[in-house]
Amino acid sequence: MNPQALFDQTVSRIHPVSPEAVKKAYERLDNLTKPRRSLGYLEELAARLVAVTGQARPAVGKKRVFVFVGDHGVVEEGVSAYPSEVTALMVKNFLGGGAAINVLARRAGAEVEVIDIGMKDDPGAAPALICSNVKRGAGNIARGPAMTREEALGAMAVGIRRATVAAQEQVMLLGTGEMGIGNSTPAAALLAVFLNLPVAQVVGRGTGLDDKGLQVKTRVIEKALAVNRGHCAGPVETLAALGGLELAGICGLCLGAAAQSRPVVVDGFISSASALAAMRICPAVKDYLFFAHMSAEAGHRQFFTSEGLRPILDLGMRLGEGTGAAIAMQILEDAAAITNEMATFADIGITPGA
Amino acid sequence: MNPQALFDQTVSRIHPVSPEAVKKAYERLDNLTKPRRSLGYLEELAARLVAVTGQARPAVGKKRVFVFVGDHGVVEEGVSAYPSEVTALMVKNFLGGGAAINVLARRAGAEVEVIDIGMKDDPGAAPALICSNVKRGAGNIARGPAMTREEALGAMAVGIRRATVAAQEQVMLLGTGEMGIGNSTPAAALLAVFLNLPVAQVVGRGTGLDDKGLQVKTRVIEKALAVNRGHCAGPVETLAALGGLELAGICGLCLGAAAQSRPVVVDGFISSASALAAMRICPAVKDYLFFAHMSAEAGHRQFFTSEGLRPILDLGMRLGEGTGAAIAMQILEDAAAITNEMATFADIGITPGA
Repeated sequence: MNPQALFDQTVSRIHPVSPEAVKKAYERLDNLTKPRRSLGYLEELAARLVAVTGQARPAVGKKRVFVFVGDHGVVEEGVSAYPSEVTALMVKNFLGGGAAINVLARRAGAEVEVIDIGMKDDPGAAPALICSNVKRGAGNIARGPAMTREEALGAMAVGIRRATVAAQEQVMLLGTGEMGIGNSTPAAALLAVFLNLPVAQVVGRGTGLDDKGLQVKTRVIEKALAVNRGHCAGPVETLAALGGLELAGICGLCLGAAAQSRPVVVDGFISSASALAAMRICPAVKDYLFFAHMSAEAGHRQFFTSEGLRPILDLGMRLGEGTGAAIAMQILEDAAAITNEMATFADIGITPGA
Repeated sequence: MNPQALFDQTVSRIHPVSPEAVKKAYERLDNLTKPRRSLGYLEELAARLVAVTGQARPAVGKKRVFVFVGDHGVVEEGVSAYPSEVTALMVKNFLGGGAAINVLARRAGAEVEVIDIGMKDDPGAAPALICSNVKRGAGNIARGPAMTREEALGAMAVGIRRATVAAQEQVMLLGTGEMGIGNSTPAAALLAVFLNLPVAQVVGRGTGLDDKGLQVKTRVIEKALAVNRGHCAGPVETLAALGGLELAGICGLCLGAAAQSRPVVVDGFISSASALAAMRICPAVKDYLFFAHMSAEAGHRQFFTSEGLRPILDLGMRLGEGTGAAIAMQILEDAAAITNEMATFADIGITPGA
């Protein structure tokens, strides 16, 4: 199936989660041996998991974090503390198992899948690397579009297919992740457009810019918005013009997972910008997304406020890779265990009080 | 050893954690393959774990949550949505493995130890129950002291001994928990005294009081403070007068763990009030405490603000039992894994940038 047809079919298969299913999940939670709703947000996560998966006892079981990797021409404008070469070095690190995402995914019992979707240089064959390169690096958004519409659809198709394969392999919980030196710049650009906010409110220091670097980055994003103004007719076009290959891949993963009725844990700042593109493409996808954490990247709080969303964790992390998603997967599995394993009041002979 | 001698010896063995050890832990963290400090609070947790345990690679391994159980005479004043009988029913539930703490501790790989330290009625023999009852229920604090000084020292000694046994059994991470219908009332009373705040700022709805119940509870606590004013000369005396058996047990556990250089995860509102008593007894104990979460109980935020502390999680939980501690143990183990397992920049041939 060509990318456009796959995209259309995927979006047509995403349906909002039934409020009735959420209500029914709460009925069980309210009969468990604890004061009503005393597990707070954990109960909301449990109820949503039940509703999303359609399972009264959601078995989280197999989990997978997808690390989409891409490069960014805009790095030549001086927007990152690290050079693009670090992207490839970090891919080696992922494949060797020594990166933060490897450690945290192991802890969560999740697999890590690393996908070259847009690396500048060919990383060569590696058994554990998924080679789905759509383009050798996104264009410099300060001078033109990051991708053509076709390239963006191609990258989304990669994400959709990874979600479909995962569902076929009985993966029950998907997590987003990324690596791409410079990618907080396109992420901030997307947030500025999708949230209709000034650049200054969504830009941040990324991997560690100083004040001067932050000024440069702000101006570069403003320039990118001006240069690409004519390319932002719809959400797919905006993602193509201002995003990047790995951001489009994450957007596709969110859409693909929702089409398969699978919950997705969205990592941090970059992943949220990508998920926001998916939400603008298809608002119903939101029901399937669980936002892992509040990043230390300044614009992330704006995202949560504007969209009325709540992150699971707030640990001041700003690493990406899917690290926040891996930690949050543990909490989601805790939530599922509550509804699956706790005794009811009837079991122990208490009549619920207030 | 008598309780007073055990208490004195324990407090004398608690030493502040060396800032040099924390600094050294950060040196390693700053060489791992991630932008400097990009794992935020997770790195602070890792550095503190290294410093507290004195292990460059802290092996969390064996974990245990201690559920101290006690009753409260003040329940007769109408301060709780549930009757005291629920305490014993929940103990049965803990021993049967069906309570929230059982489920969440299993998920975290932690053992659960249930201790009758102050239950009103004798629960009878049960293989898994630690029988260390100091007194059959705390006195009604609205009419007099909860405990004598000797009873409070006896309950603290139970906690100290549980920590010592745990250390002997190679438990590397301890978590506090409690069950005791009515115990958010003594907890709020302790916070009012230790933080020097009006009752209205530290009182909350507990397991589910309505507005009228909250008014009653506020007046009862104000009365308790007035009635016991003469009994609050020092922190031990305050804990005895306004606390409860399980609160004193948790206070003892914190002191005992710190004396053994073991980190303690402090659960929610009740546990924090108990830990605060330990901090007033011996300020250095603070270095060994990791606060699990921000409870939905109103006064908990006041505690964190006043003491300049930061909880690991904020999930709107208000259940107690040690449920927040069990979830936070997973995050602490994640933090330890980061420092233990990640590759360094030298390993993968990157020269750290900014």
